[in-house]
Amino acid sequence: MRKKEDLPNCPVATTVSMIGNKWKLLIIRNLISRPWRFNELQRDLEGISQKVLTDSLRSMEADGIITRTVYPEVPPRVEYALSELGKSLCPVIEEMKKWGLMYKELAK
Amino acid sequence: MRKKEDLPNCPVATTVSMIGNKWKLLIIRNLISRPWRFNELQRDLEGISQKVLTDSLRSMEADGIITRTVYPEVPPRVEYALSELGKSLCPVIEEMKKWGLMYKELAK
Repeated sequence: MRKKEDLPNCPVATTVSMIGNKWKLLIIRNLISRPWRFNELQRDLEGISQKVLTDSLRSMEADGIITRTVYPEVPPRVEYALSELGKSLCPVIEEMKKWGLMYKELAK
Repeated sequence: MRKKEDLPNCPVATTVSMIGNKWKLLIIRNLISRPWRFNELQRDLEGISQKVLTDSLRSMEADGIITRTVYPEVPPRVEYALSELGKSLCPVIEEMKKWGLMYKELAK
Protein backbone atom coordinates (compact mmCIF):
# COMPACT_ATOMS: atom_id res chain seq x y z
CA MET A 1 0.00 0.00 0.00
CA ARG A 2 1.04 3.59 -0.43
CA LYS A 3 2.15 5.66 2.50
CA LYS A 4 -0.17 8.32 3.88
CA GLU A 5 2.25 11.13 2.99
CA ASP A 6 2.32 10.03 -0.66
CA LEU A 7 -1.47 10.38 -1.04
CA PRO A 8 -3.21 13.55 -2.28
CA ASN A 9 -5.29 15.41 0.30
CA CYS A 10 -8.47 14.93 -1.69
CA PRO A 11 -9.97 11.45 -1.29
CA VAL A 12 -11.32 11.46 -4.87
CA ALA A 13 -7.81 12.31 -6.13
CA THR A 14 -6.43 9.48 -3.99
CA THR A 15 -8.64 6.96 -5.78
CA VAL A 16 -8.03 8.61 -9.15
CA SER A 17 -4.26 8.38 -8.61
CA MET A 18 -4.63 4.63 -8.22
CA ILE A 19 -7.31 3.61 -10.70
CA GLY A 20 -8.02 6.72 -12.82
CA ASN A 21 -6.91 5.03 -15.98
CA LYS A 22 -8.74 3.17 -18.73
CA TRP A 23 -6.79 -0.08 -18.48
CA LYS A 24 -6.76 -0.36 -14.71
CA LEU A 25 -10.52 0.15 -14.60
CA LEU A 26 -11.07 -2.56 -17.22
CA ILE A 27 -8.69 -4.94 -15.42
CA ILE A 28 -10.65 -4.45 -12.19
CA ARG A 29 -13.90 -5.02 -14.09
CA ASN A 30 -12.52 -8.36 -15.31
CA LEU A 31 -11.12 -9.48 -11.95
CA ILE A 32 -14.47 -8.90 -10.21
CA SER A 33 -15.81 -12.18 -11.61
CA ARG A 34 -12.76 -14.44 -10.98
CA PRO A 35 -8.93 -14.57 -11.05
CA TRP A 36 -7.38 -14.07 -14.50
CA ARG A 37 -4.08 -15.08 -16.07
CA PHE A 38 -1.82 -12.56 -17.80
CA ASN A 39 -2.38 -13.89 -21.31
CA GLU A 40 -6.14 -14.03 -20.84
CA LEU A 41 -6.15 -10.38 -19.78
CA GLN A 42 -3.98 -9.40 -22.72
CA ARG A 43 -6.30 -11.16 -25.16
CA ASP A 44 -9.41 -9.62 -23.62
CA LEU A 45 -8.13 -6.03 -23.36
CA GLU A 46 -7.88 -5.20 -27.04
CA GLY A 47 -5.07 -2.82 -27.82
CA ILE A 48 -3.16 -3.10 -24.52
CA SER A 49 0.58 -3.71 -24.92
CA GLN A 50 2.47 -6.28 -22.87
CA LYS A 51 4.42 -3.46 -21.18
CA VAL A 52 1.36 -1.45 -20.20
CA LEU A 53 -0.40 -4.56 -18.87
CA THR A 54 2.71 -5.55 -16.88
CA ASP A 55 3.11 -2.03 -15.48
CA SER A 56 -0.58 -1.73 -14.61
CA LEU A 57 -0.63 -5.07 -12.78
CA ARG A 58 2.59 -4.26 -10.90
CA SER A 59 1.37 -0.88 -9.73
CA MET A 60 -2.00 -2.26 -8.65
CA GLU A 61 -0.15 -5.01 -6.74
CA ALA A 62 2.07 -2.38 -5.08
CA ASP A 63 -1.02 -0.35 -4.16
CA GLY A 64 -2.57 -3.42 -2.50
CA ILE A 65 -5.47 -3.71 -4.94
CA ILE A 66 -4.60 -7.02 -6.57
CA THR A 67 -2.75 -10.18 -5.59
CA ARG A 68 -0.40 -12.17 -7.79
CA THR A 69 -0.32 -15.90 -7.06
CA VAL A 70 2.18 -18.28 -8.62
CA TYR A 71 1.04 -21.92 -8.71
CA PRO A 72 3.95 -24.39 -8.74
CA GLU A 73 3.07 -26.14 -11.98
CA VAL A 74 5.18 -26.71 -15.08
CA PRO A 75 5.11 -24.13 -16.58
CA PRO A 76 4.19 -22.08 -13.45
CA ARG A 77 0.68 -20.70 -13.55
CA VAL A 78 0.33 -17.08 -12.44
CA GLU A 79 -3.05 -15.67 -11.51
CA TYR A 80 -4.13 -12.14 -10.70
CA ALA A 81 -7.06 -11.56 -8.38
CA LEU A 82 -8.63 -8.70 -6.46
CA SER A 83 -7.41 -8.37 -2.86
CA GLU A 84 -9.94 -7.54 -0.16
CA LEU A 85 -9.06 -3.88 -0.72
CA GLY A 86 -9.54 -4.36 -4.45
CA LYS A 87 -12.93 -5.97 -3.89
CA SER A 88 -14.00 -2.84 -2.03
CA LEU A 89 -13.73 -1.04 -5.40
CA CYS A 90 -16.76 -3.00 -6.66
CA PRO A 91 -19.21 -0.15 -5.90
CA VAL A 92 -17.16 2.20 -8.12
CA ILE A 93 -17.32 -0.25 -11.03
CA GLU A 94 -20.98 -0.97 -10.28
CA GLU A 95 -21.86 2.74 -10.54
CA MET A 96 -19.89 2.94 -13.80
CA LYS A 97 -21.89 -0.01 -15.10
CA LYS A 98 -25.20 1.62 -14.17
CA TRP A 99 -24.19 4.87 -15.83
CA GLY A 100 -22.98 3.10 -18.96
CA LEU A 101 -26.28 1.24 -19.24
CA MET A 102 -28.18 4.51 -18.92
CA TYR A 103 -25.99 6.23 -21.52
CA LYS A 104 -26.51 3.35 -23.94
CA GLU A 105 -30.28 3.65 -23.42
CA LEU A 106 -30.18 7.35 -24.27
CA ALA A 107 -27.80 7.04 -27.24
CA LYS A 108 -29.35 6.80 -30.68
CA MET B 1 -23.76 12.45 -27.32
CA ARG B 2 -22.11 9.47 -28.93
CA LYS B 3 -24.03 7.21 -31.24
CA LYS B 4 -25.05 3.77 -30.05
CA GLU B 5 -22.88 2.03 -32.67
CA ASP B 6 -19.78 3.86 -31.45
CA LEU B 7 -20.16 2.56 -27.88
CA PRO B 8 -18.49 -0.61 -26.58
CA ASN B 9 -20.83 -3.51 -25.80
CA CYS B 10 -19.81 -3.54 -22.14
CA PRO B 11 -21.50 -0.79 -20.11
CA VAL B 12 -18.45 -0.40 -17.83
CA ALA B 13 -16.26 0.06 -20.93
CA THR B 14 -18.77 2.64 -22.21
CA THR B 15 -18.30 4.74 -19.09
CA VAL B 16 -14.55 4.12 -19.04
CA SER B 17 -14.29 5.28 -22.67
CA MET B 18 -15.81 8.60 -21.62
CA ILE B 19 -14.36 9.31 -18.18
CA GLY B 20 -11.66 6.67 -17.59
CA ASN B 21 -8.94 9.25 -17.35
CA LYS B 22 -7.33 11.07 -14.46
CA TRP B 23 -8.05 14.61 -15.64
CA LYS B 24 -11.65 14.05 -16.68
CA LEU B 25 -12.43 12.49 -13.31
CA LEU B 26 -10.87 15.43 -11.47
CA ILE B 27 -12.71 17.94 -13.68
CA ILE B 28 -16.01 16.22 -12.88
CA ARG B 29 -15.11 16.24 -9.18
CA ASN B 30 -14.62 20.02 -9.40
CA LEU B 31 -17.78 20.72 -11.41
CA ILE B 32 -19.96 18.85 -8.92
CA SER B 33 -19.90 21.83 -6.55
CA ARG B 34 -20.46 24.67 -9.09
CA PRO B 35 -19.59 25.90 -12.62
CA TRP B 36 -15.89 26.63 -13.19
CA ARG B 37 -13.99 28.84 -15.62
CA PHE B 38 -11.15 27.52 -17.77
CA ASN B 39 -8.39 29.37 -15.94
CA GLU B 40 -9.69 28.34 -12.56
CA LEU B 41 -9.64 24.70 -13.64
CA GLN B 42 -6.14 25.03 -15.03
CA ARG B 43 -4.87 26.55 -11.79
CA ASP B 44 -6.54 23.89 -9.66
CA LEU B 45 -5.47 20.86 -11.72
CA GLU B 46 -1.75 20.95 -11.08
CA GLY B 47 0.26 19.70 -14.01
CA ILE B 48 -2.47 19.78 -16.67
CA SER B 49 -1.45 21.51 -19.91
CA GLN B 50 -3.68 24.00 -21.69
CA LYS B 51 -4.03 21.56 -24.60
CA VAL B 52 -5.04 18.59 -22.47
CA LEU B 53 -7.56 20.69 -20.54
CA THR B 54 -9.03 22.07 -23.79
CA ASP B 55 -9.24 18.59 -25.34
CA SER B 56 -10.76 17.08 -22.19
CA LEU B 57 -13.44 19.78 -21.94
CA ARG B 58 -14.27 19.52 -25.66
CA SER B 59 -14.64 15.77 -25.61
CA MET B 60 -16.79 15.87 -22.46
CA GLU B 61 -18.94 18.53 -24.13
CA ALA B 62 -19.26 16.35 -27.26
CA ASP B 63 -20.22 13.37 -25.07
CA GLY B 64 -22.97 15.43 -23.44
CA ILE B 65 -21.42 15.40 -19.97
CA ILE B 66 -20.66 19.11 -19.59
CA THR B 67 -22.06 22.37 -20.91
CA ARG B 68 -20.07 25.39 -22.04
CA THR B 69 -21.79 28.73 -21.51
CA VAL B 70 -20.49 32.01 -22.88
CA TYR B 71 -21.69 35.10 -20.99
CA PRO B 72 -21.74 38.26 -23.14
CA GLU B 73 -19.41 40.34 -21.03
CA VAL B 74 -16.24 42.16 -21.99
CA PRO B 75 -14.12 40.07 -22.06
CA PRO B 76 -16.63 37.21 -22.52
CA ARG B 77 -16.90 34.92 -19.53
CA VAL B 78 -16.97 31.18 -20.31
CA GLU B 79 -18.18 28.71 -17.75
CA TYR B 80 -18.15 24.94 -17.74
CA ALA B 81 -20.81 23.04 -15.80
CA LEU B 82 -22.13 19.51 -15.50
CA SER B 83 -25.12 18.76 -17.73
CA GLU B 84 -27.97 16.68 -16.33
CA LEU B 85 -26.22 13.64 -17.80
CA GLY B 86 -22.97 14.76 -16.18
CA LYS B 87 -24.71 15.18 -12.82
CA SER B 88 -25.78 11.56 -13.03
CA LEU B 89 -22.05 10.69 -12.71
CA CYS B 90 -22.10 11.94 -9.10
CA PRO B 91 -22.55 8.43 -7.65
CA VAL B 92 -19.35 7.28 -9.44
CA ILE B 93 -17.37 10.15 -7.91
CA GLU B 94 -19.09 9.62 -4.56
CA GLU B 95 -17.97 5.96 -4.47
CA MET B 96 -14.44 7.04 -5.42
CA LYS B 97 -14.51 9.51 -2.55
CA LYS B 98 -15.65 6.84 -0.07
CA TRP B 99 -12.95 4.46 -1.26
CA GLY B 100 -10.27 7.14 -1.10
CA LEU B 101 -11.27 8.00 2.47
CA MET B 102 -11.05 4.34 3.43
CA TYR B 103 -7.65 3.92 1.77
CA LYS B 104 -6.33 7.00 3.59
CA GLU B 105 -7.55 5.54 6.87
CA LEU B 106 -5.70 2.28 6.21
CA ALA B 107 -2.48 3.89 4.91
CA LYS B 108 0.32 4.39 7.42
